[in-house]
Amino acid sequence: MTNDQSASARQAPVTVVGLGPMGLALAGTLLDHGHRTTVWNRTPGKADHLASKGVRPAATVAEAVTASPVTITCLKDYDTMFEVFDSAGDALRGRVLVNLNSGTPKEAHAAAGWAAERGVSYLDGAIMVPPPMVGQPGSVFLYSGSREVFDEHRATLASMGDPRYLGADPGLGVLYNTALLEMMYATINGYLHATALVGSAGVSAVEFAELAIGWFLPAALGPMLAAEAPVLDEGDYPGDLGTLEMNLNALEHIARTAEERGVHTDQPRLMREIAARAIADGHGGKSYLAVYEVFKNAAS
Amino acid sequence: MTNDQSASARQAPVTVVGLGPMGLALAGTLLDHGHRTTVWNRTPGKADHLASKGVRPAATVAEAVTASPVTITCLKDYDTMFEVFDSAGDALRGRVLVNLNSGTPKEAHAAAGWAAERGVSYLDGAIMVPPPMVGQPGSVFLYSGSREVFDEHRATLASMGDPRYLGADPGLGVLYNTALLEMMYATINGYLHATALVGSAGVSAVEFAELAIGWFLPAALGPMLAAEAPVLDEGDYPGDLGTLEMNLNALEHIARTAEERGVHTDQPRLMREIAARAIADGHGGKSYLAVYEVFKNAAS
Repeated sequence: MTNDQSASARQAPVTVVGLGPMGLALAGTLLDHGHRTTVWNRTPGKADHLASKGVRPAATVAEAVTASPVTITCLKDYDTMFEVFDSAGDALRGRVLVNLNSGTPKEAHAAAGWAAERGVSYLDGAIMVPPPMVGQPGSVFLYSGSREVFDEHRATLASMGDPRYLGADPGLGVLYNTALLEMMYATINGYLHATALVGSAGVSAVEFAELAIGWFLPAALGPMLAAEAPVLDEGDYPGDLGTLEMNLNALEHIARTAEERGVHTDQPRLMREIAARAIADGHGGKSYLAVYEVFKNAAS
Repeated sequence: MTNDQSASARQAPVTVVGLGPMGLALAGTLLDHGHRTTVWNRTPGKADHLASKGVRPAATVAEAVTASPVTITCLKDYDTMFEVFDSAGDALRGRVLVNLNSGTPKEAHAAAGWAAERGVSYLDGAIMVPPPMVGQPGSVFLYSGSREVFDEHRATLASMGDPRYLGADPGLGVLYNTALLEMMYATINGYLHATALVGSAGVSAVEFAELAIGWFLPAALGPMLAAEAPVLDEGDYPGDLGTLEMNLNALEHIARTAEERGVHTDQPRLMREIAARAIADGHGGKSYLAVYEVFKNAAS
């Protein structure tokens, strides 16, 4: 018995449907971890490279789905998923479908209902890394929906990345994913605008990053944010170490400096408006965290 | 000779003018590091607690300034600094003034001119930590202006925190400070809004922070930002791993999800607008970093 065969014997067969860059990364990683891996893609030929390594291309969705107890899918959107799997008739009934495309919580809820009607065990999720990082250390996958399905197939999920179960609400995976993406864009935008500010005085991005990313983000900002989380849950935001009024002054100062330096001002101006709104709502004597109260509610 | 006396013998005398929370923290830290520390404040009595530990309160600004070769000041703003030190006549002439209040680069330039006219060696700077962190490990102080003054008094500056010299342009200290503050507010806002998004499904801030601050920020976001800095300096932003058009889709999705969840939408909508503006400017096939081109220029 070769190593490959013993690995295959230990690992469950898996099917991957949808071979965009992410689907290809998932199938390749599952194969590397010793799973007998079957694939299907609407446009044939996408699996040619993987087939030469041992992945098994199926001729139809039904053939792909019946080759394994678990099907992982990463298609363009939920509507495409409904269309593709409904074309396979009853093939998924009694099997497990793990869907990793992105969408909104409402769409994930609709998909869970669609799966239940068809007798399919369903897990919704999101991949928090780009395709080249799949299977690498630190590659996190978020899952929500049936705890039983997650527990039973945890070893298979772990072959793709670090699996985190978020809860029974099937919308949690895509909601966490969207929230983390928003945090990513806001943090990148803050960093890029700050780089533009110092760049107005001829400072290079590499020079600024040494301090901003090399020191400030991990040593000052990260620990501060970690310490703040329980305060947010309490919803009190004591202002004894600095009030929102003081923070509004700092934000006025940032907006004024952006203007003085001739860089874009929309982002600092919106931050100033949000702080001013929190003060107008009566939070002026609280800490800066009270802007959380503004964020929790849709703008009137 | 006691330990205190031997420490005093090694350390230069220092004067601190302005005893708000930050001035008090600076004076206390300098005293702890063995400097003979003289203080002055417009409102007397602020130094009473420190005086009992050995700090020397001066009766006038002139008396305070002539007690030490170096005066550190942290007053409300630049105008207050001009007023306070001009009230001391020629006392500062031939001495060193290190100013740590916040302001704009223009104000720092004006202060450097004011000091030069009076024969005062001037260093402008900014304190990157709140008062309780002064003197603690990781407490960073930014300085700009005369390299000679910085080098000659580095040991004294190091008693307050980790001193970083940014360049001869006296406006760099306050500019870096403002840029890092903006990055801080943008990152906090991103985190708070993301917390509000998952909070709409009943997820607690502590639960979300475990993933967002415990994993995502240090393991995914920080390394990505560090890797991006040289790309910003090159100004090319190749889009082969993902284009701004794709990122606009993600930002549309975030804005739509914020709406679906009933949380505030101004922040995601502005991020979407900024990406759309970069695409309108012809950067749609570049990477997301091309929004840097938008940030570098004042909005038309």
